[in-house]
Amino acid sequence: MKFSVTVTLKKDVLDPQGKVVLNTLINMGMNNLKNIRQGKHFEIEVDEKKQSEAEKKIDEMCKKLLVNLIIEDYTITKIS
Amino acid sequence: MKFSVTVTLKKDVLDPQGKVVLNTLINMGMNNLKNIRQGKHFEIEVDEKKQSEAEKKIDEMCKKLLVNLIIEDYTITKIS
Repeated sequence: MKFSVTVTLKKDVLDPQGKVVLNTLINMGMNNLKNIRQGKHFEIEVDEKKQSEAEKKIDEMCKKLLVNLIIEDYTITKIS
Repeated sequence: MKFSVTVTLKKDVLDPQGKVVLNTLINMGMNNLKNIRQGKHFEIEVDEKKQSEAEKKIDEMCKKLLVNLIIEDYTITKIS
């Protein structure tokens, strides 16, 4: 089973990296741009039969390593 | 309008960062893990009325700055 995990900074946390990308795009002549925030993306493949078990495992990985719960949010989606 | 852009390394490109995450998780005692690949995620907000116009603009941003088309693939999804 394959899952996609998206990790984003919480709404109220400053995102300097996204700001740099935003300013660069504006300097390149892009208009009507309002905001950009950058995050991380993981594609995780696990060898489990049950989806609930697999999701529990992915959630544990997020909490223990992939996500800094103080400043980041995450969403898990099944791909295949 | 808000879009999500996911940038991933192409299937045949080595992903050392994902490999490190994979090995770390295995060392932490996670089993049944098959593979992990890491990518980037952008949330882009544009001030456009038409969805087609907005998507064209986002696509241009990807091609010009956000994505290295030689080694990376990208997908654009409308969030809101």
